Amino acid sequence: MNDFSYSEKNNVSGEVGFVACKDFLCKEPLQFELGGELSEYNIRYETYGKLNADKSNAILVCHALSGDHHLAGVYSMTDKKTGWWNQIVGSNKPLDTDKYFIIGSNCLGGCSGSTGPSSINPATGKKWALDFPAITIKDMVAAQERLIHHLGIKKLALIIGGSMGGMQALQWGIDFPNKVERIIALATTSMQSAQAIAFNEVGRHAIMSDHDWNKGDYESNTPPAIGLSVARMMAHITYLSDKGMEGKFGRHQSASKEKENEDLFLPRFEVEKYLHYQGKAFVNRFDANTYLYFTKALDLFDLRGADLTLESGLKSIEAKVLTVGFTSDWIFPSEGNKAIVTALLKQKKRASYVEIESDLGHDSFLTDSPKLYELIRNFLDV
Amino acid sequence: MNDFSYSEKNNVSGEVGFVACKDFLCKEPLQFELGGELSEYNIRYETYGKLNADKSNAILVCHALSGDHHLAGVYSMTDKKTGWWNQIVGSNKPLDTDKYFIIGSNCLGGCSGSTGPSSINPATGKKWALDFPAITIKDMVAAQERLIHHLGIKKLALIIGGSMGGMQALQWGIDFPNKVERIIALATTSMQSAQAIAFNEVGRHAIMSDHDWNKGDYESNTPPAIGLSVARMMAHITYLSDKGMEGKFGRHQSASKEKENEDLFLPRFEVEKYLHYQGKAFVNRFDANTYLYFTKALDLFDLRGADLTLESGLKSIEAKVLTVGFTSDWIFPSEGNKAIVTALLKQKKRASYVEIESDLGHDSFLTDSPKLYELIRNFLDV
Repeated sequence: MNDFSYSEKNNVSGEVGFVACKDFLCKEPLQFELGGELSEYNIRYETYGKLNADKSNAILVCHALSGDHHLAGVYSMTDKKTGWWNQIVGSNKPLDTDKYFIIGSNCLGGCSGSTGPSSINPATGKKWALDFPAITIKDMVAAQERLIHHLGIKKLALIIGGSMGGMQALQWGIDFPNKVERIIALATTSMQSAQAIAFNEVGRHAIMSDHDWNKGDYESNTPPAIGLSVARMMAHITYLSDKGMEGKFGRHQSASKEKENEDLFLPRFEVEKYLHYQGKAFVNRFDANTYLYFTKALDLFDLRGADLTLESGLKSIEAKVLTVGFTSDWIFPSEGNKAIVTALLKQKKRASYVEIESDLGHDSFLTDSPKLYELIRNFLDV
Repeated sequence: MNDFSYSEKNNVSGEVGFVACKDFLCKEPLQFELGGELSEYNIRYETYGKLNADKSNAILVCHALSGDHHLAGVYSMTDKKTGWWNQIVGSNKPLDTDKYFIIGSNCLGGCSGSTGPSSINPATGKKWALDFPAITIKDMVAAQERLIHHLGIKKLALIIGGSMGGMQALQWGIDFPNKVERIIALATTSMQSAQAIAFNEVGRHAIMSDHDWNKGDYESNTPPAIGLSVARMMAHITYLSDKGMEGKFGRHQSASKEKENEDLFLPRFEVEKYLHYQGKAFVNRFDANTYLYFTKALDLFDLRGADLTLESGLKSIEAKVLTVGFTSDWIFPSEGNKAIVTALLKQKKRASYVEIESDLGHDSFLTDSPKLYELIRNFLDV
């Protein structure tokens, strides 16, 4: 969906218009947290707005599991879809391109241009596949830091992200405390619950049981489409809320009932058709191995320190931190966002927590939310 | 798990001991609600306790999606597992075999002895598979009524069941109002939410996308094991609660870490291993086509009348009704159980609702619950 119309209608913002992505080929080897290294790697990124003379107006946006570097605008006149945070990034928008230089980068391990399991391993001339090193949130952040350094930026005015993006934002604050002024972490957690790990494992099991997965060694035109679509359909339910789904779909059945009675097991409820659409669309745009690596990175993420307290894990943070939980988010519950701020405040760090009332579940941070826009604007002025 | 020890420890009950299942072959054709018929069919059942002289002490227990007719006791000395409601059915237990004649029957369409898609279609000499008629909760109840008639019972003292079993209990009250004295419906609903339908559809998609499903035409020794295990693993998460999973598994990882580091994607968290175990166990005991038919029956179940109100749908009920919701049940939320009683009370019918505090999610009705035991005992004395 192109949401230009939305922005015009609400008269709150100006579009970033046409954008182009860039590549940063880092030739400095990267050691991975759990072992393994890349001798060089590419990070695909996009920027919006202008870096000021003292390079103090940079904002890094970190994407979630299925996101990428393309935050806003379109690539061409025929592009039907804007970047995933088009309502947030633009002239006079919450991340204001008139004031800030905004960077979106595809995470290391990703499948949208940055080096990941679907990239060619220079040592073999074949795809990395499962030979790609185990990647953690810490590794993603380490690669991003090289990009920021490459752009000549000493300190980011803000790092912001939701879900897996929120994890990265917090990890930045821990690993590079003097390079981050502010952190906004949305709909995130310091460590995933057993329930969230469980859903991720079922998704991985679906992918890895798909014959076409072939131990990770598949061609891009014959991916494990069944497993990946099952994983996405299931995960998609966890991104919405019971109430939100009830409002959007309820028990609505499609008009073409006569046709469906031919087969009892064809989708008939609107919610079924919606999920099938989401599953298919995902297979066309996302790499199954990246899905495995990223969900495992989510599961292994644990900000607690060696003493298993969050306080010790967060002790190096110097940035001002804002976490935002959404009331109907059940997969990354609001309490988990609050707990991060509680642990920071115990150490007299500058942190605040806001809970936003929403029926849209985990995906709330991706939707139109005037309250969130206001929060971001205000926090940038602190 | 054999829970004899539990019962002895708590000194609340006597075991039913050894039991044997029986078969009722009904030769009267059954017309299905959505079309199709069976010229004859078998219902496998078990009974506990003795039917009294005036046949007024009979209780029918209806099972949930993955349950069966085997409620309590064991089949032999080597049987490691008792029936699924062993804590409820027995001498001096809530469903007291000293006072009542208790019947468990495998639902029509099932895979534990009653006629279902894995049975032989007499017309072809081959398995019914997808030629089996679409089955609804109403059809299950119609088949059960024939069994009750066969046993010479005019009126059941109680029909009780949880989840899909609760749906059957309510449907009984609607379709055979003068044959039911009391109904207890646990952790159930008058119609499933969009979210519950969505999870069921993902499970069906996993099964039907499994190459071994073969449009339903598979041999019992080569079932669509991957799809069925994925469906079960996912569904199992929905039967537990976030809090319950956190308490039981948290982020515990297995001790044998060195082995698992060999493969990043092997299960390492306890919750992952638990789900894999559940998935495998289910494939060994349950038929994939029955899973499709039963989940579709759940999705299509809608007790609202033609005017789309629950009041009109429930207006024929004459039985005393008790519904029980469990606080942490998010897939069949407590409000849905309460709504049934509200609709009955509006019509001045005899109904009550109780909410039981529990961290065990939807599966709460299958677990040790002294509060539930007390409710059942008291309701039988009303």
